[in-house]
Amino acid sequence: METQATATEQQLFISTEAMLRHWQGHRNLTRRVIEAFPEDQLFSFSVGGMRPFAQLAMEIIDIAVPGVKGLADGKWEKVESFDHSLGSIKTKQQLLELWDETTKVIDEYWPQISEERFQQVEVAFGMYENANYATFLYFLDNEIHHRAQGYVYLRALGIEPPFFWER
Amino acid sequence: METQATATEQQLFISTEAMLRHWQGHRNLTRRVIEAFPEDQLFSFSVGGMRPFAQLAMEIIDIAVPGVKGLADGKWEKVESFDHSLGSIKTKQQLLELWDETTKVIDEYWPQISEERFQQVEVAFGMYENANYATFLYFLDNEIHHRAQGYVYLRALGIEPPFFWER
Repeated sequence: METQATATEQQLFISTEAMLRHWQGHRNLTRRVIEAFPEDQLFSFSVGGMRPFAQLAMEIIDIAVPGVKGLADGKWEKVESFDHSLGSIKTKQQLLELWDETTKVIDEYWPQISEERFQQVEVAFGMYENANYATFLYFLDNEIHHRAQGYVYLRALGIEPPFFWER
Repeated sequence: METQATATEQQLFISTEAMLRHWQGHRNLTRRVIEAFPEDQLFSFSVGGMRPFAQLAMEIIDIAVPGVKGLADGKWEKVESFDHSLGSIKTKQQLLELWDETTKVIDEYWPQISEERFQQVEVAFGMYENANYATFLYFLDNEIHHRAQGYVYLRALGIEPPFFWER
């Protein structure tokens, strides 16, 4: 009953199901940006002293996996426990495989997150207090933001990036 | 009654009101990226042959104004009628003033857009067929994407960009 009350007070912009499709569409595009990099440049190329794209992709993965689990069960890992290092990832293929495993984790956990959970205020990663929907939007916006850095890197390398509107 | 039916079938991720705050928070950050550019570099600096940030900011404005009006009334301007040219905008101050006028237009029109309007499928700008919420997310994602280009430009110029998490 509480669900109905919430839903009729608040006008729906987007449903939880549609937001998952939106996210996975973006992740599909980010995957194609990883693929577009030449192997060596993926791990080394930089503009203005910023991190290579492999490290940005790793940050995106590092947020997504504990992020979607935290959103589902409210048991947030502490932010100190992940450092976005590449660890054992040394090739594009390994990075893409980790990306695809992440896709499966998201598809498994997201449907467990209720409307109420998304509206609840929590301290994500033991550090960022916000409504869970806003915490999630931060993950997504951060991915779009870092992927766009990858677009500039590709352009600077003379490589045509994937179309932004293809998901 | 139809509103209730829609709302109980679909789990709410974010309300229309919260999405307006989210957008204006992003727009506030983009405004500070415009401000961070030295006057001349705003209109001229580029990496990898991409457009200067003033032109990217103009594209964002050019989509936002007819975009929010189209979402409100369903009378979409044809895409041919806007070309993202800077027109009479020749200074940072003029660009910021246009940005602030856009902020007011958005605040005026957004509350007129109902939950039903956002779920409706339309041909935005006479060209892009999609649910209106997805069309809007494209506007927002496009802004985050182009603003991130601005971040790389600033870094390449040796300028610290505004914090991504401050809105």
